[in-house]
Amino acid sequence: MFRTAELGQKIPKSEYNQREPLLRQALLEVQANLRVSNEFPVIILFAGVDGGGKGDTVNLLNEWMDPRWLITRAYDAPSDEERDRPEYWRFWRDLPPQGRIGLFLSSWYSQPILQRVYEKDSEAVFDDRLDRILAFEEALADDGALILKFWMHLSHDAQKRRLKKLEKDPLTSWRVTQRDWDHWHIYDRFEAAAERTIMRTSTGHAPWTIVEGVDPCFRSLTVGEIVHKEISRHLEEARKKALLLEEMAAASTSPPVVEQPAEGEGGRDDIVNTPLPGTTVLSSLDMSLQFSKSEYKKELQKYQARLNQLHRKALKKRVSTILLFEGPDAAGKGGAIRRTTRALDARHYQVIPIAAPTDEERAHHYLWRFWRHLSRAGRITIFDRSWYGRVLVERVEGFASEGEWKRAFAEINEFEEQLTDHGILLLKFWVHITKEEQLERFRAREQTPHKRWKLTEEDWRNREKWDDYEWAVNDLVEHTSTRTAPWVLVEGNDKRYARIKVIGTFCDRLGAMLDDKK
Amino acid sequence: MFRTAELGQKIPKSEYNQREPLLRQALLEVQANLRVSNEFPVIILFAGVDGGGKGDTVNLLNEWMDPRWLITRAYDAPSDEERDRPEYWRFWRDLPPQGRIGLFLSSWYSQPILQRVYEKDSEAVFDDRLDRILAFEEALADDGALILKFWMHLSHDAQKRRLKKLEKDPLTSWRVTQRDWDHWHIYDRFEAAAERTIMRTSTGHAPWTIVEGVDPCFRSLTVGEIVHKEISRHLEEARKKALLLEEMAAASTSPPVVEQPAEGEGGRDDIVNTPLPGTTVLSSLDMSLQFSKSEYKKELQKYQARLNQLHRKALKKRVSTILLFEGPDAAGKGGAIRRTTRALDARHYQVIPIAAPTDEERAHHYLWRFWRHLSRAGRITIFDRSWYGRVLVERVEGFASEGEWKRAFAEINEFEEQLTDHGILLLKFWVHITKEEQLERFRAREQTPHKRWKLTEEDWRNREKWDDYEWAVNDLVEHTSTRTAPWVLVEGNDKRYARIKVIGTFCDRLGAMLDDKK
Repeated sequence: MFRTAELGQKIPKSEYNQREPLLRQALLEVQANLRVSNEFPVIILFAGVDGGGKGDTVNLLNEWMDPRWLITRAYDAPSDEERDRPEYWRFWRDLPPQGRIGLFLSSWYSQPILQRVYEKDSEAVFDDRLDRILAFEEALADDGALILKFWMHLSHDAQKRRLKKLEKDPLTSWRVTQRDWDHWHIYDRFEAAAERTIMRTSTGHAPWTIVEGVDPCFRSLTVGEIVHKEISRHLEEARKKALLLEEMAAASTSPPVVEQPAEGEGGRDDIVNTPLPGTTVLSSLDMSLQFSKSEYKKELQKYQARLNQLHRKALKKRVSTILLFEGPDAAGKGGAIRRTTRALDARHYQVIPIAAPTDEERAHHYLWRFWRHLSRAGRITIFDRSWYGRVLVERVEGFASEGEWKRAFAEINEFEEQLTDHGILLLKFWVHITKEEQLERFRAREQTPHKRWKLTEEDWRNREKWDDYEWAVNDLVEHTSTRTAPWVLVEGNDKRYARIKVIGTFCDRLGAMLDDKK
Repeated sequence: MFRTAELGQKIPKSEYNQREPLLRQALLEVQANLRVSNEFPVIILFAGVDGGGKGDTVNLLNEWMDPRWLITRAYDAPSDEERDRPEYWRFWRDLPPQGRIGLFLSSWYSQPILQRVYEKDSEAVFDDRLDRILAFEEALADDGALILKFWMHLSHDAQKRRLKKLEKDPLTSWRVTQRDWDHWHIYDRFEAAAERTIMRTSTGHAPWTIVEGVDPCFRSLTVGEIVHKEISRHLEEARKKALLLEEMAAASTSPPVVEQPAEGEGGRDDIVNTPLPGTTVLSSLDMSLQFSKSEYKKELQKYQARLNQLHRKALKKRVSTILLFEGPDAAGKGGAIRRTTRALDARHYQVIPIAAPTDEERAHHYLWRFWRHLSRAGRITIFDRSWYGRVLVERVEGFASEGEWKRAFAEINEFEEQLTDHGILLLKFWVHITKEEQLERFRAREQTPHKRWKLTEEDWRNREKWDDYEWAVNDLVEHTSTRTAPWVLVEGNDKRYARIKVIGTFCDRLGAMLDDKK
């Protein structure tokens, strides 16, 4: 089946530059719709030839979409906890919940194919393992999941050219290993196993798409456009099905509709406002700091390149980083996070957006939900909002009692000390904007269709409590800026300045930490 | 401080036999109240001298209380996943949620004390580690947790006598290791570290109770009665606090009260009843099977002793077992589970009661919640109700659509195949009673004060659908009784007969499995 795909498919760079921005916007929109509908999970997996662009494509999808709602996983040798359970345990525990997208590299297909290529499994065993995959994907699809599978293909010659090219560039040579060449030498066996895999596991609810991997422009747009099209289609189908069910329900006796309390309801407004001191930590920031577009571009490239190298070094040395972002609504936290993750390999970081706790989280101490997200050694965990919610929103809105938020300072310091004691680099960014700048950004959001979903009633409500928040922030910085985990205050009125400060600080602190480890 | 505890405290067996049944009932009641109030978690930890009865006491508490709402944990060397995170990560992930009790052996105190005894940590480092414990327990207590800490004490001589005695009995000699004797030889150092630990970490919200461990009757009743008293007191305090808050809220404007939909609402009643076939799987059971009290006692003892040995062997050979129990309400599933767990070490099994899914679970495929509970190698996991809910209650009540429950048969078979393929012993018990017997048991529950909470409106509602359930069970057994994981149908009208059949089957199957492994 690969013969037909050898078409040397290409997209010229100029066409790519035209189509890419449209695709990005469309992907962001469809991702937002998916999240709002909260109807089904999306599982996207990549397999295929080494050098076919699997990793690059996954990184690109992380760049194009909002990484807070993406889960990216790649699987190495199983941990001892994983070896103690059936093979699929680790896949099950990583499945995205409804409304989110999971990107899987070296997924459940990896072991069966490799075992067959190395002739460790007989054809019969191989078929059994493919059957297991079929059943797994069928169960997920039947439950409503959208499953997309991309086979990144290169011909034998194209693969050789690609590996040679990667090897020649000092920036990418590390990516080519002896294993890649070993695989190249047994291409025929690999192709046979691949053909059988695709033949047997391409089903109506989880079909394979073979994508020629030679041209990055072609493969990126192809994958991106299919992802967009399929999620849109699936959303539309889910919507139709819901309508149908509604009609059916209306025809019969309908169960009582129970309204959920809106977020923010049930809060108390009994915060006593002490007048703000003349100068606060925040009011002393120089909010006029900025970068020109050209400076910005140069600096960003420099730091992203540096961060990419540092992060690979950190992985090798097993140095973990935790970044957390706090700041007013529309301060540009998400933008700063995306500029940072763009320099990273999606296999090795995770972005954790902190919203209302789940009921399991509510049944534990408020720090429990952060403990559970700590990652394995060498990884980067980015919290978009964090445990500081306790002394910010929960304090201001009265969700936490005075006793609760007051003792939270000590609890937070203790928690952070455990992180840094373990050798984790902890960076805490407060991205700040002025009240006027926030208003402008809210208005701009109202006017941009694909950004309108980002602005909620709650944002306007929070804005009314600006002074309360400023007071709380002051307190927070005073209580929790420690030697090992100081707050980094980021002047955010100029987005470019803020992003450079974030990524630059990350580079400097990680660099220093890795130097210490020598 | 240990001097004062050296009193040779004892309780005569006859007094024990009088007080024990009362204590058990009181503990069960207070545990039920804790669960219903769902206000706070209870953390009970045990430390002290080897041979002081820590493990025995934990096992006894598991026997006295309902193990479905207990979490028992002991900590060995950390797994590689645990080593990658700060030391406390594994404690955080095991904390009981509100309404439940966690029993901890070799808890957060273990490493600090041992490191100090072996002189690997200086006194300064030791103090730092005790400070960390203080902060941890304070955070939990401030959040409402009830923390009880028992130090099981033996004098140097008493410890020697105890170890010798354990060694002499072939049934317990395996419990004494060289490490125990090594510890005995450095008793002085151990005592010094222990004194410092207790002195520095006995706080108002998490005090230590020193319990003399020589006499099993004394130590068991002492621990049990303190547990009962403290949970009762804490519940009472929580109640008062809630009342106070209510009054305060009534005085101010109260937020709108949103009612949760009752369980079972929103279901559909569109099951089409096909008439039951003349003989069903269940109707062919001989429900008159029974055991006399003396037969029962003899058989139970025999099997419990055998199971205890088999289970230790399984642990060594890393053979895991999963038991699941299904059956009508009041069929005696809980009783059969308790008779089984009594033969096991609480460190190595967990009972998972399956009720309504949490919202995180609801956001995934229905099998996800079972995957997440799979345990490490060698352990026993007992599901009180299980994934068969999909084809029982969800089918009968219409929570699952026809498509969903029909394909569930295949999904369940696939899931179970993965378990058995991994070498896990899977035992599925259907404990059955007749409709008449159920009515008698419901009536008896209504009349027994401490059992009344076990009977709910829902139980009566389910009873009305007896025929639907019988039909569903028939289907289920037909579709999911496989060679490697057949259903074991248990004639349950006589509780004694049912319990022996369960534990006997468990022994036979586990024994056969372990023989195969030789």
